[in-house]
Amino acid sequence: MTPITLARADELADGTLRHARSIDAAPLAVVVMDAGGHPVVVKREDGAGILRVEIATAKAYGALGMGMSSRQIAERAEHQPAFFTSLAAATDGRLAPAAGGVLIRDADGAVLGAIGVSGDTSDVDEACALAALAN
Amino acid sequence: MTPITLARADELADGTLRHARSIDAAPLAVVVMDAGGHPVVVKREDGAGILRVEIATAKAYGALGMGMSSRQIAERAEHQPAFFTSLAAATDGRLAPAAGGVLIRDADGAVLGAIGVSGDTSDVDEACALAALAN
Amino acid sequence: MTPITLARADELADGTLRHARSIDAAPLAVVVMDAGGHPVVVKREDGAGILRVEIATAKAYGALGMGMSSRQIAERAEHQPAFFTSLAAATDGRLAPAAGGVLIRDADGAVLGAIGVSGDTSDVDEACALAALAN
Amino acid sequence: MTPITLARADELADGTLRHARSIDAAPLAVVVMDAGGHPVVVKREDGAGILRVEIATAKAYGALGMGMSSRQIAERAEHQPAFFTSLAAATDGRLAPAAGGVLIRDADGAVLGAIGVSGDTSDVDEACALAALAN
Repeated sequence: MTPITLARADELADGTLRHARSIDAAPLAVVVMDAGGHPVVVKREDGAGILRVEIATAKAYGALGMGMSSRQIAERAEHQPAFFTSLAAATDGRLAPAAGGVLIRDADGAVLGAIGVSGDTSDVDEACALAALAN
Repeated sequence: MTPITLARADELADGTLRHARSIDAAPLAVVVMDAGGHPVVVKREDGAGILRVEIATAKAYGALGMGMSSRQIAERAEHQPAFFTSLAAATDGRLAPAAGGVLIRDADGAVLGAIGVSGDTSDVDEACALAALAN
Repeated sequence: MTPITLARADELADGTLRHARSIDAAPLAVVVMDAGGHPVVVKREDGAGILRVEIATAKAYGALGMGMSSRQIAERAEHQPAFFTSLAAATDGRLAPAAGGVLIRDADGAVLGAIGVSGDTSDVDEACALAALAN
Repeated sequence: MTPITLARADELADGTLRHARSIDAAPLAVVVMDAGGHPVVVKREDGAGILRVEIATAKAYGALGMGMSSRQIAERAEHQPAFFTSLAAATDGRLAPAAGGVLIRDADGAVLGAIGVSGDTSDVDEACALAALAN
């Protein structure tokens, strides 16, 4: 396992936003974190709301926190609403149960970090992050 | 009542993880607290998400906070969701309504502390803690 | 006044890090904020400590908060230590009195945002931000 | 760089406490964190105060946050008191400027995590962590 570099994180952030422009998504914020949940690159597009970085951060952090995508967290939250409300408080809101937070893994499956995206619908947000990872 | 010792807490943490490995559970975090809700031993297995200690802590703390297992708290939360949402805020999320937090009692039933576990389903988390207590 | 764009913020962040590499500075984090104190671009170099983004953020935010560079804030803090201790609490630490936070102004002097840098000594941190602004 | 394992963290925690007992130190808490500042092993000895884990955590986290030992942070704090007061607030107290927090590095100098110790004087706390690393 190699820690995620600034160069790689920058590529992933740019790849996310390139996909967003190609599908004419709403203005996005993208956060690329290392495996410890610390930001390596953050970018907020012109016109994106001033909380978008925080939301993108909570999606990425939650994915790292639970070891699964924020889409899977959202699915669990539907079945255990009281538990996830308490988790939001327990983690100071660092865990956002909505698609758009995806894990970055190496070839062996080890978690290297996460991408979080916010600005459009959560499905679009996630699609942009996945497009960046696919390249 | 004798306060829980580091030696005993260490046995309980190791017993929890030993059971987890014997049933091939997902990577877990385990927290053993004293009766005051302060950690005595914390262990996080390789590959467990970075919020697992916080979640295990909230399960154990909640059990001590309400004087019942976090499974019983979860059952109550199902019937009083608004109350438990307010408790999440009132307690800064120190109370997680999901199985996996169990009280440690002495032979007379006095509460000595609690074990909290997170990483797999809440049923598996709890089974690991109960296995440690049964030895 | 035109709000700072992602393109411009990205140039400033990259210019800061380019200067840092040219003088062989310690690994840095750089934050470029808009006039509202919200991040537009954040970059953390390989090997920079995990609190460097928070510290760079507090330098930039403080500059915006007081309408002066964080170097000037540090000079004031030396003469009024009790006041700045209370400000640390009042502002939740969003104001770091140490060089490395500089305002971004347009040709008329209007504040467009701020750059915050952390990782080396505060003098080096500030020199990197100023070099980016000079280009 | 290999992430720190539970097995290695457990050895370091036990090594810290073994040294503490051999020199008859006051009861200690020891925290071993991964490079992201997340606890892997925490142990609190019988009789150690209920805030010792939080203090040990702040020493280890601060070392990771600044990329230097908490002893070096303490030395800097003496020269920039206002800055470090603001950092305490900016980081929610995750940075304790007192000896007892030391970085864990691999053979190439890459940071794998940190040990934080609290309970005796900060010099003794640090000596216990260093003794564990020396084995």
